[in-house]
Amino acid sequence: MSAKQSALLTDLYQLTMLQAYFDEGMAETAVFEFFVRALPPGRNFLVAAGLEQVLAYLQQFRVTEKELAWLRAHGGFREPFLAALGELRFTGDVHALPEGTIFFGNEPVLRITAPIAQAQVVESRLLSLLHFSTLIASKAVRSVLAAPGKLLIDFGMRRAHGAEAGLLAARAAYVAGFSGTATVAAGIEYGIPVFGTMAHSYIEAHADEISAFKGFARSCPQNVVLLIDTYDTERAAEKVVRIAPELAREGIRVRGVRLDSGDLAAHARAVRAILDRGGLGEATIFSSGNLDEWKVRELLASGAPIDGFGIGTALDTSSDAPFLDCAYKLQEYAGVPRRKHSEGKATWPGRKQVYRHFTEDGLFERDSVNLEGALQRGMPLLAPVMRAGRRLPPAESVAESLAIARARAALQLTKLPPALRSLDPAPAPYRVDIAPPLRALAQKLDRMPH
Amino acid sequence: MSAKQSALLTDLYQLTMLQAYFDEGMAETAVFEFFVRALPPGRNFLVAAGLEQVLAYLQQFRVTEKELAWLRAHGGFREPFLAALGELRFTGDVHALPEGTIFFGNEPVLRITAPIAQAQVVESRLLSLLHFSTLIASKAVRSVLAAPGKLLIDFGMRRAHGAEAGLLAARAAYVAGFSGTATVAAGIEYGIPVFGTMAHSYIEAHADEISAFKGFARSCPQNVVLLIDTYDTERAAEKVVRIAPELAREGIRVRGVRLDSGDLAAHARAVRAILDRGGLGEATIFSSGNLDEWKVRELLASGAPIDGFGIGTALDTSSDAPFLDCAYKLQEYAGVPRRKHSEGKATWPGRKQVYRHFTEDGLFERDSVNLEGALQRGMPLLAPVMRAGRRLPPAESVAESLAIARARAALQLTKLPPALRSLDPAPAPYRVDIAPPLRALAQKLDRMPH
Repeated sequence: MSAKQSALLTDLYQLTMLQAYFDEGMAETAVFEFFVRALPPGRNFLVAAGLEQVLAYLQQFRVTEKELAWLRAHGGFREPFLAALGELRFTGDVHALPEGTIFFGNEPVLRITAPIAQAQVVESRLLSLLHFSTLIASKAVRSVLAAPGKLLIDFGMRRAHGAEAGLLAARAAYVAGFSGTATVAAGIEYGIPVFGTMAHSYIEAHADEISAFKGFARSCPQNVVLLIDTYDTERAAEKVVRIAPELAREGIRVRGVRLDSGDLAAHARAVRAILDRGGLGEATIFSSGNLDEWKVRELLASGAPIDGFGIGTALDTSSDAPFLDCAYKLQEYAGVPRRKHSEGKATWPGRKQVYRHFTEDGLFERDSVNLEGALQRGMPLLAPVMRAGRRLPPAESVAESLAIARARAALQLTKLPPALRSLDPAPAPYRVDIAPPLRALAQKLDRMPH
Repeated sequence: MSAKQSALLTDLYQLTMLQAYFDEGMAETAVFEFFVRALPPGRNFLVAAGLEQVLAYLQQFRVTEKELAWLRAHGGFREPFLAALGELRFTGDVHALPEGTIFFGNEPVLRITAPIAQAQVVESRLLSLLHFSTLIASKAVRSVLAAPGKLLIDFGMRRAHGAEAGLLAARAAYVAGFSGTATVAAGIEYGIPVFGTMAHSYIEAHADEISAFKGFARSCPQNVVLLIDTYDTERAAEKVVRIAPELAREGIRVRGVRLDSGDLAAHARAVRAILDRGGLGEATIFSSGNLDEWKVRELLASGAPIDGFGIGTALDTSSDAPFLDCAYKLQEYAGVPRRKHSEGKATWPGRKQVYRHFTEDGLFERDSVNLEGALQRGMPLLAPVMRAGRRLPPAESVAESLAIARARAALQLTKLPPALRSLDPAPAPYRVDIAPPLRALAQKLDRMPH
């Protein structure tokens, strides 16, 4: 992640367009906005994330000599353009929703204002970064809502779609309120708390569970959370109780157990009783195994005595909604608003702002999308974050900005109307108005010839 | 991708287990196997991919000094173990299904035989690599079956789950039979053909479509595929016809048009007629816009005159099945077969092989999973690919091995029973037998105490 990102991690058409703009002498300022067209089924709101990665990408954008050589060799690109491409840096302005902001469909999440070549060439990667982190933060927050106050750990790296997805999912889940991740590299990269003890293979490699439990406890005495479902969950819990006094004499406390299969609610109740009877009332029960927010909600609703959840595949792949219908669209070129009319994909033109209105109780009431600078009440949500290619303060430290984003998400959750906080679809979606000046501009553009 | 991959892109529990093994003096040979438990709904078969990435990862596995320093500072790890971790390299054996092999549930796809620390610590990343590439190859092959002989291009990088997913999806789709990708970096990394021309923003940035079309054609005369749905598809097609003679006089041929929205079948028919009437009978029609294998099948079944398809989000996220129920499980330690009993997650123990049986016509008839070395007819599918940490030939060149994998997938598709070639679920799944010796071993292990 901190390594140089290739500027050619992009679609070829960005480069063919850039060459055409170069040949045509088109170098005016363009305004592009990133937005999500409509929320996926099953989402009442989204949580913005990934801005930090976008800004880092923009700052280090540069096509290398080696990449230029590849383009030279692979046809269609000519020398004066390639030289210009080698000089290209991002010198534009960026406005964005701060990470951790709750937002809705049709609302601009990020705006780029830059010479058209710069604004265009970053499209593919910018989409990839904002899309994925926002997707996962918006998935993770559902487990946070389903399990308030519980330990929630990202277990998903192994089934995330590749290395970057595993890392960014850990970060996005943390922004949304997860307690941490199992992924060591995410801890190193982002300063997120990292959790983990043992897998079934560890238990199986030993002749019996008791020697595995004791071996682990002595090797890792500060972190004794024992996996008890490899063979027979309740019998393993009895074994934990049996060895606890011996470990206690060595100064080792059994902090908890983990359940990973079967009827988790029933096992948790049986195991809780065994631990309590055995004097391990303070030992916690952590569960994992194909969990998602629905299963977490169900387990807690049934009163299962579970203290924490490891959520993996469903989180890191956002399995019920593995993508957002998002886009990065030209809104203005050379001072003139632009609009795509394509059927079912028309966009609202111009530089826009989201204005949020609150109830008297301080809850989100409705948003209004309007042209920037319009006479409009409400709290504007997009803020400048980069000017002329330079980041604006804050965000000197990655860890600090991550903590702020996490706090922002937590605060905004408290302001969400109750109906939107449910895992179930709200009876009515949150109200997002397209303000009259914006509608008027769109109509005007539609009447122009092309 | 070619950069150093962090060995700590793994779950923390791998490291706590490794320290426990170290403290307990457990260093015998372990055998782990990667397999998919059951095919996702809607898949009749899977296509193995990602082996190349796994082997590269194993070869360069090394915990850096910087990473050791992080572990030292972040608690729970002690010096003699950390020194050993710094020395750890992968020196084991690997057996695997070659990339492009068609396989089914419960079949080992890859087997690691190595000292337990090595075999354990690579689990998370190995899973991540094999899982994702196999997931995407298995999704992509469905479009290949739906559109035989058509141009199929991966358009999905922007909504793939991060950078690595975008790159690996392009590669996996190519293995499965796609023609290429829009992602430039995938072309650089893997030598895959790269395609692309223009986006709507290019059209919109111009005062009118005709100047955009001409501008692009003159800038990129070898690659004139014009996007015609920005405002009005049929009117744009008429404009293409109108400017074609002028471009032809300049030696520029309009190779095709792209449709990206609306009723693609209806537009394609109307546009085909316009192009044909206008003397552009050789210009092709390429389509894109939220496509997947179902829509491709429907378009072709309706007789829509479409020559190629760009498939993006649905491909790169495998949107209808965004993960495989896969696992990497301990099968043997210190010469003794092992088995996890966890409810609903029990595994078949021991070192296994897949034996494929063929009909008289050469089609796949059934597979049998048995212990390696068992007396068993059929063609064994797992082959040795790495011995004592060194790769076995072939695969000197990335491009060469990719071409071979692609040819293998294409060949195996011709041997698939017709019912499995459908996008619809086959009336009966392909037959995979668990051979009697394997069942007997599992029963024997179940009777042992733990």
